[in-house]
Amino acid sequence: MSPETMTITRDVQTDIDDRRVAIREVGISDLKTLMTVSGIELDETAEQTVSMTASLGASLREEIKGIHMSRLVEDLLEAEGRLDFRGILNLLLRLRDHQGSDDSVLSFAFDYFLDRQAPVSGRIAKQAYSCRYEARLKDGKELTFVQSVEVPVTTLCPCSKEISSYGAHNQRGYVDVRLEHHFADIGEADVKICLEEVIEQVEASASAPLYPILKRVDERFVTMQAYDEPRFVEDMVRNVSMKLREDVRVDAWQVKVTNHESIHQHNAYAVVRGGSSALRF
Amino acid sequence: MSPETMTITRDVQTDIDDRRVAIREVGISDLKTLMTVSGIELDETAEQTVSMTASLGASLREEIKGIHMSRLVEDLLEAEGRLDFRGILNLLLRLRDHQGSDDSVLSFAFDYFLDRQAPVSGRIAKQAYSCRYEARLKDGKELTFVQSVEVPVTTLCPCSKEISSYGAHNQRGYVDVRLEHHFADIGEADVKICLEEVIEQVEASASAPLYPILKRVDERFVTMQAYDEPRFVEDMVRNVSMKLREDVRVDAWQVKVTNHESIHQHNAYAVVRGGSSALRF
Amino acid sequence: MSPETMTITRDVQTDIDDRRVAIREVGISDLKTLMTVSGIELDETAEQTVSMTASLGASLREEIKGIHMSRLVEDLLEAEGRLDFRGILNLLLRLRDHQGSDDSVLSFAFDYFLDRQAPVSGRIAKQAYSCRYEARLKDGKELTFVQSVEVPVTTLCPCSKEISSYGAHNQRGYVDVRLEHHFADIGEADVKICLEEVIEQVEASASAPLYPILKRVDERFVTMQAYDEPRFVEDMVRNVSMKLREDVRVDAWQVKVTNHESIHQHNAYAVVRGGSSALRF
Amino acid sequence: MSPETMTITRDVQTDIDDRRVAIREVGISDLKTLMTVSGIELDETAEQTVSMTASLGASLREEIKGIHMSRLVEDLLEAEGRLDFRGILNLLLRLRDHQGSDDSVLSFAFDYFLDRQAPVSGRIAKQAYSCRYEARLKDGKELTFVQSVEVPVTTLCPCSKEISSYGAHNQRGYVDVRLEHHFADIGEADVKICLEEVIEQVEASASAPLYPILKRVDERFVTMQAYDEPRFVEDMVRNVSMKLREDVRVDAWQVKVTNHESIHQHNAYAVVRGGSSALRF
Repeated sequence: MSPETMTITRDVQTDIDDRRVAIREVGISDLKTLMTVSGIELDETAEQTVSMTASLGASLREEIKGIHMSRLVEDLLEAEGRLDFRGILNLLLRLRDHQGSDDSVLSFAFDYFLDRQAPVSGRIAKQAYSCRYEARLKDGKELTFVQSVEVPVTTLCPCSKEISSYGAHNQRGYVDVRLEHHFADIGEADVKICLEEVIEQVEASASAPLYPILKRVDERFVTMQAYDEPRFVEDMVRNVSMKLREDVRVDAWQVKVTNHESIHQHNAYAVVRGGSSALRF
Repeated sequence: MSPETMTITRDVQTDIDDRRVAIREVGISDLKTLMTVSGIELDETAEQTVSMTASLGASLREEIKGIHMSRLVEDLLEAEGRLDFRGILNLLLRLRDHQGSDDSVLSFAFDYFLDRQAPVSGRIAKQAYSCRYEARLKDGKELTFVQSVEVPVTTLCPCSKEISSYGAHNQRGYVDVRLEHHFADIGEADVKICLEEVIEQVEASASAPLYPILKRVDERFVTMQAYDEPRFVEDMVRNVSMKLREDVRVDAWQVKVTNHESIHQHNAYAVVRGGSSALRF
Repeated sequence: MSPETMTITRDVQTDIDDRRVAIREVGISDLKTLMTVSGIELDETAEQTVSMTASLGASLREEIKGIHMSRLVEDLLEAEGRLDFRGILNLLLRLRDHQGSDDSVLSFAFDYFLDRQAPVSGRIAKQAYSCRYEARLKDGKELTFVQSVEVPVTTLCPCSKEISSYGAHNQRGYVDVRLEHHFADIGEADVKICLEEVIEQVEASASAPLYPILKRVDERFVTMQAYDEPRFVEDMVRNVSMKLREDVRVDAWQVKVTNHESIHQHNAYAVVRGGSSALRF
Repeated sequence: MSPETMTITRDVQTDIDDRRVAIREVGISDLKTLMTVSGIELDETAEQTVSMTASLGASLREEIKGIHMSRLVEDLLEAEGRLDFRGILNLLLRLRDHQGSDDSVLSFAFDYFLDRQAPVSGRIAKQAYSCRYEARLKDGKELTFVQSVEVPVTTLCPCSKEISSYGAHNQRGYVDVRLEHHFADIGEADVKICLEEVIEQVEASASAPLYPILKRVDERFVTMQAYDEPRFVEDMVRNVSMKLREDVRVDAWQVKVTNHESIHQHNAYAVVRGGSSALRF
């Protein structure tokens, strides 16, 4: 069972494969890791250490039998627990080089926490925002980078308000925004929009934002604010889309809103897409 | 690889175990199965075929190494796809007998669908209720049977209504009711309360029930009904508890309400328990 | 609160919207329903009643404020609890017509149960397969229909077998196959491949299929079968892809395999796509 | 909408309630928060910042209508993002005092990361362990504290190995260990066992531990180690139980093992409990 005995056994992964099927991506998923993220906040110096779920992979040419899975984890370790856009580019290059692949791919999903201040009392506490990074490097040169965030908000139904003598049903809605960036050459790759900016746009588009802490004066404020600003899922996707379609910093985008309707067991949803996505399904 | 060759190999499960650790329960879980359930509705003749997730097990004496897992599935097959209280008793007896165990245990989780009629338009459609059966047979004689259901409802916040000049935040709430029944002798075992009755009690205790289909006249009705009947999670658990504590057909019970607060990312919850549970954690 | 009073209030959804944002799809999701499905099995007469999670929607022109959500549920009710390919087409047409939309879209997710017979003992029991239907009707004429299934299998690692003097790590793998069909004219729409056929192809490509019930003679058989037929995730996607790329009944397809590696907390995965998908992300 | 206008409105929560139903616990759940945890590792100075899901609550006397939800979040904020046993006691006292309740309760669920070293190559990387703290303070004096951890391991089937000429099915198993501690007086409360110690006991009881990174020499090692150390779920719960029942530092405990059987779609599980639990269901 000594390492020596290993040198004589062959490495199955390097065998020739004659099925003539190239693999779009192969790697590891659902890898839990702890990383310090920067680049989410408007304050460029801000960073936060959070739990993440990662996926790392590479394409595989048709003649090669398999990739070296353990190297993917080693490539991640070289990031030394830090994750920013530049680090993602370097990781994509390492994944590709160490596998001898044409393309490399990765994704990271994590909750990032931002302070939220109650509108009247001014009480401050952190709220979690579910974020995702997905990136694909083609031929070690062409990059598609996607940053996404799910923003929970309050939505109050315009129809319910209109047809009722008093009251209006409202609920928690989830606004998932996906921003896609293309770069013909990784050398010029630079992302100029951060997720905190998107989060603020979304919260400003809702009937009311959510808050981790609300005193009675705040609860009165947000209750009336929501009643004054009714939104259908249609209104939510349109309001957020109007901001994104003007944004030259984004190549393609999707806004999906899902309302957990308080009068139904099912949800209401709406989707708008814009720009030209580089990703076919 | 013929069956014959098997007769000579020993059956590991029947080996003597000297660790002197009796096992409370051992078996299979997350078994998906399709069954026809009866006994949920007030109409005793009603039945419904639904997808289920089942768990089946038995206790194991300290001197025996293992149980026979495949027999558990065979025991379930003998139920021939039908599930009612009598069938559960028979299954518990089979599980025990075929393993030579003192105790046997099972659980079934499934969505059961009931018609719900819109309050004004009268439109009818089915709504799903998440149900669970859990049962434990001690020494083949003493039975603990638990039936549970999660009822989704609308709750409108009394505080938000009181402190605001107009409007009130409301949301989807989930009321999980757990009814426990004890029988010193399985022979006398008979359950006289069905989950549909519990569902109706819970929906009557909420700010408003949920409906699969609501026309505009109905939406106006439920919007105003909810505003007229505000409920805290505290009110919900208390209203449901008041009905259960009077109910001689139940030996022990728990009501848990979870509101998906429309003004917060987190939920509000409350729990009340009554009677004397036979189950220690 | 009488229906009469409603006739005077305006219908907010029909208001003019001046934001000039057309909505790709808007509707309801996570609607639980009970339906009788046919068209999954090779036996064309076979059908099964199962619990489903449905999503129904339509596109919305930029000048219209909102759709009529309740009509979506009514459209589903008209299917009278039956779901087959023809019924899906009719539902897509109803969704579109009743909303006055250009496009309509739907999806259904459900577990379908098929008998599986143990290889030696011949014991038979049902196993669940997670299935999905997704369909999009463009301009009431052009159809994209996607049928998917997740098949759980056993995979044994070729590298582990090769480098070890005895044994080899193996685990449960999940093979998700997605078949896409395009029809320029709904009138000619006809799907000639059923998911049971795909399931059989996938199970034949694995180290071994899974079984709901295995006696000791069967367990010996599948243990040795898996050791004799080692598979990387790369082998799995390639084997299934070789069958699909030859299949003229499919316009585009994806095979994704995820192994719940028994030696790691993370999973191994691989993806191959073929044909020309009509769906951009 | 000024704070002033609030002083005149009454505080609904302080109303008298005449339903005569005391509430066991009421509060908030699913609150996401970022905290620095200590007390998990054998190295008492070790700490780690991780994402958590928290629940905070208190009992409510029958005559009081409701609790003050926002104070629960404020109580958590006073912990200043740090979580250890002493901090949990102080938080329980704050929760109780600020609500004027008899009892207080809390729970925290989080992934904690520990280094794991490959057995031959010596490669090191972090692996996540899902941990939970649950605590209940009765009358501000009597404490029940529960610490739990889920440890993923490899289990190889003894039966499969015994009856087969070669190979043996193996899979990922999840060992959930729950340690309960009782203190008649919070003043003497002190927990002397940490979860890292439990994790090491569990990993030593399995066919093999899991590792975040394994080179080929390591994969050979763990493959053969697992084949040399077969374990049923029964063996796993017994091996872990033998250690716990001797441990005077624990008042009550539960071990639950769930094997994701590689030859079945369903799982195998086993449960053993010991000591005297203070918690009825």
